Amino acid sequence: MGRTAPETKACDFVLFGTKGDLARRKLLPSLYQLDKADLLHADTQIIGVAKDQFTREEFVGKVTESLKTFVKEPLDSKTLERFLARCHYIGANFTEASEYAAFHEVVDQSKRVMVNYFATPPAIFGDICRCLHEQDLITSETRVVLEKPIGSDLASSKVINDQVSAYFSEKQVYRIDHYLGKETVQNLIALRFANSIFASKWDNRTVDHVQITVAEEVGIEGRWGYFDKAGQMRDMIQNHLVQVLTLVAMDPPVNLDADSVRDEKVKVLKSLRPITMDNVFENTVRGQYSAGFLKGSPVPGYLEEEGANVNSNTETFVALRVDIDNWRWAGVPFYLRSGKRMPVKSSEIVIYFKNPPHNLYRDSYRNLPPNKLTIRLQPHEGVEIQMMNKVPGLEPKQRLQTTKLDLSFSDTFKTERIADAYERLLLEAMTGNQALFVRRDEVEQSWTWVDGIIQAWEQSGEKPKAYPAGTWGPVASVALITKDGRSWDE
Amino acid sequence: MGRTAPETKACDFVLFGTKGDLARRKLLPSLYQLDKADLLHADTQIIGVAKDQFTREEFVGKVTESLKTFVKEPLDSKTLERFLARCHYIGANFTEASEYAAFHEVVDQSKRVMVNYFATPPAIFGDICRCLHEQDLITSETRVVLEKPIGSDLASSKVINDQVSAYFSEKQVYRIDHYLGKETVQNLIALRFANSIFASKWDNRTVDHVQITVAEEVGIEGRWGYFDKAGQMRDMIQNHLVQVLTLVAMDPPVNLDADSVRDEKVKVLKSLRPITMDNVFENTVRGQYSAGFLKGSPVPGYLEEEGANVNSNTETFVALRVDIDNWRWAGVPFYLRSGKRMPVKSSEIVIYFKNPPHNLYRDSYRNLPPNKLTIRLQPHEGVEIQMMNKVPGLEPKQRLQTTKLDLSFSDTFKTERIADAYERLLLEAMTGNQALFVRRDEVEQSWTWVDGIIQAWEQSGEKPKAYPAGTWGPVASVALITKDGRSWDE
Repeated sequence: MGRTAPETKACDFVLFGTKGDLARRKLLPSLYQLDKADLLHADTQIIGVAKDQFTREEFVGKVTESLKTFVKEPLDSKTLERFLARCHYIGANFTEASEYAAFHEVVDQSKRVMVNYFATPPAIFGDICRCLHEQDLITSETRVVLEKPIGSDLASSKVINDQVSAYFSEKQVYRIDHYLGKETVQNLIALRFANSIFASKWDNRTVDHVQITVAEEVGIEGRWGYFDKAGQMRDMIQNHLVQVLTLVAMDPPVNLDADSVRDEKVKVLKSLRPITMDNVFENTVRGQYSAGFLKGSPVPGYLEEEGANVNSNTETFVALRVDIDNWRWAGVPFYLRSGKRMPVKSSEIVIYFKNPPHNLYRDSYRNLPPNKLTIRLQPHEGVEIQMMNKVPGLEPKQRLQTTKLDLSFSDTFKTERIADAYERLLLEAMTGNQALFVRRDEVEQSWTWVDGIIQAWEQSGEKPKAYPAGTWGPVASVALITKDGRSWDE
Repeated sequence: MGRTAPETKACDFVLFGTKGDLARRKLLPSLYQLDKADLLHADTQIIGVAKDQFTREEFVGKVTESLKTFVKEPLDSKTLERFLARCHYIGANFTEASEYAAFHEVVDQSKRVMVNYFATPPAIFGDICRCLHEQDLITSETRVVLEKPIGSDLASSKVINDQVSAYFSEKQVYRIDHYLGKETVQNLIALRFANSIFASKWDNRTVDHVQITVAEEVGIEGRWGYFDKAGQMRDMIQNHLVQVLTLVAMDPPVNLDADSVRDEKVKVLKSLRPITMDNVFENTVRGQYSAGFLKGSPVPGYLEEEGANVNSNTETFVALRVDIDNWRWAGVPFYLRSGKRMPVKSSEIVIYFKNPPHNLYRDSYRNLPPNKLTIRLQPHEGVEIQMMNKVPGLEPKQRLQTTKLDLSFSDTFKTERIADAYERLLLEAMTGNQALFVRRDEVEQSWTWVDGIIQAWEQSGEKPKAYPAGTWGPVASVALITKDGRSWDE
């Protein structure tokens, strides 16, 4: 797993919002793991920025505490020592350029690439950029990594992207969608393009339909105020599910370079059939969880959570039928669903293949179960092919059974630790490879499509349908797919 | 597993050659297993025939001994009691019609179907038929089951088939090829026609080539005299491998009825490109094992076995490149090989799919390993798909790895005992389903093709190439496939 020096670059990795949840839970532990795997250059520095005035020692203490809490295995003392030696701290008000003067004492862009990670509210992305600029901290090599949400609609995303692009070219901007860092999502590309059994069976002649499910077990987890402004559509569909959809649906890229891949993803986004007042009822379902049971314990409804506005019409569940109006996918619906308080935490992509043109087993089976390819994102990342085999035995008629050929990542690649998505993404940002980051036109195409749906919902005035916590969403979600003669994967 | 009465028919199952190896090792144990699984009708009788004059009790003693020796698990006393009560014995000279008079005391074709299993040398098949006829024991329902070898070439097979067909119509004749009774061979049909991922990928646009290997670990096992007249070509290729090839290659049958399937198999046999003096050297390899080591122990060469004629030119190994000149398979070679004293006992069919039209991973892999589908006949019957997946990890370039999605029959169908091929075939013969038996025109087409190869070998005068016991045959076998830019599956 060790990497040779030329591939890793010395960076000043500047973490804005170093005290926040994301930094503590994900970013610092991921940086630690990269260090442990020898993937950080010897000269790389990690520079926390927040408004408090910590000493370096105080900051190191806080980093240690975060690692102890959120790294899953016991800390390696040698790695920890090396890691903490990289850590620096700058106390600064993010919107006050003068307070960025301290950067000059730590950052040296003649020797190291400055990678600025904005783990802050997007409202101040622009301010940070301006302050960096005013302190003359931006070169053509300086990078910024933007955390979601980038706006709450097309207009607000444009504002944020404009603020950043006033100081950084698109080649310097790394927009995070952590789903793109997941192993199984990356494997999707290999599955599709390195395997002829799939490469040649990935279109409307061979695929019946596609399902993408991201089910969360959790409810609101104390962020009711934030979530209520967003809803599941903005929080999950617009970014994660749409990103996964583009990777499933895109045409073969010219090569695997960042822009070749993203060019193809944008083509998919441009082909998404708009959902408007005309077709919103047949193609979408909104849900909001009510009180129910999860794994045997009672849990409150969305409107009963702490801090809830009991009149909220925000959805915690969305199911969609998405049509992609292009040559490859005409007539092949993509069914998307994502919700909170589902019975299990589970993310998967399922490709349902068409049945053979003729059923030789019609005496025994009026309908043969189709072949399907399941790509499990979580839990138990892996790949599975469902096929029909004859059941061994002496029955006079051949008895068939759906059987699964299974490839579990953790079983198969036993020697490999499955890296967290953020490890991969931080490494790529430091290496300077944008392939796993979202380009501005992708964000905007996605918002254009999502805005249309949200607008149609608002115009319709319909409230989300209640579903008991611990179930798979409103009954209407089942109807959405069964009216097409299909059913959600179980 | 229990079957209802209407499907099982009451039979008089007459076993000619009841003292022979096949009867003792395979047929009687298989009948016992059918009885244990409640698949024999309550009134079914088992009637052993041999020339010795045994009493019923003596015969029952011999049956018991065979079962104790060759049934793999402990005998079930209740089943054994029931089974032995079915057993009768007739002492008769097979070629003496008058001695068949005793049949009338045991067989009653007004109540039971008479199924005559000829586990005897084929030279007397005709005599047995004549005797049955002279004793008026043949009705339009009477059946005969013929064991291989049915002749040693086209002409001799015609003689035998003519002798039988003088008394029995083709619908009454069940020619055994026990490979057709193997679970995985039957599953081949389900795999091909109940799974669209294969149904639509089974031709010269999608398949690169096919390999069929039947490797035996054993040598001659005391039957040197018999084997030396036949050779591996007649003993294994003409029947088992060619049968498997037809099932892999056939077009979709109209339905799964016996004649629909066999019609398609015959079409394949008619399409086999003849191998003659013109092309015999490039398409065939003959081998004969010399002394060597098997699993660490020294074993003698073919010419050093007991009873060997040291001048024998009989082959114990054959490798072939077979071309099927039809629309589906033009340009897709089928490589067949079968030999004795191979390093392991192993039978498998491997479908190599073509590569994707373009290699997106050419920076890392000049040649992507192809997808392949492996159908293991033995040991560990199962199905396996080799595909490419991304290796989890943080390498800058995506590292791919061939991984296997595996379906082991014994692991997957834990509750089901994998029935021996003979159990299936005896049951089908008693039920009256000819689908798993070889039709006369299949036998004759197969011999026509095989005779051509053997003739070419004889004309060429080349001796078989020596290979040490415990290896995969002569080096020429490797050359046969590598000259096409391919290699034997390992």
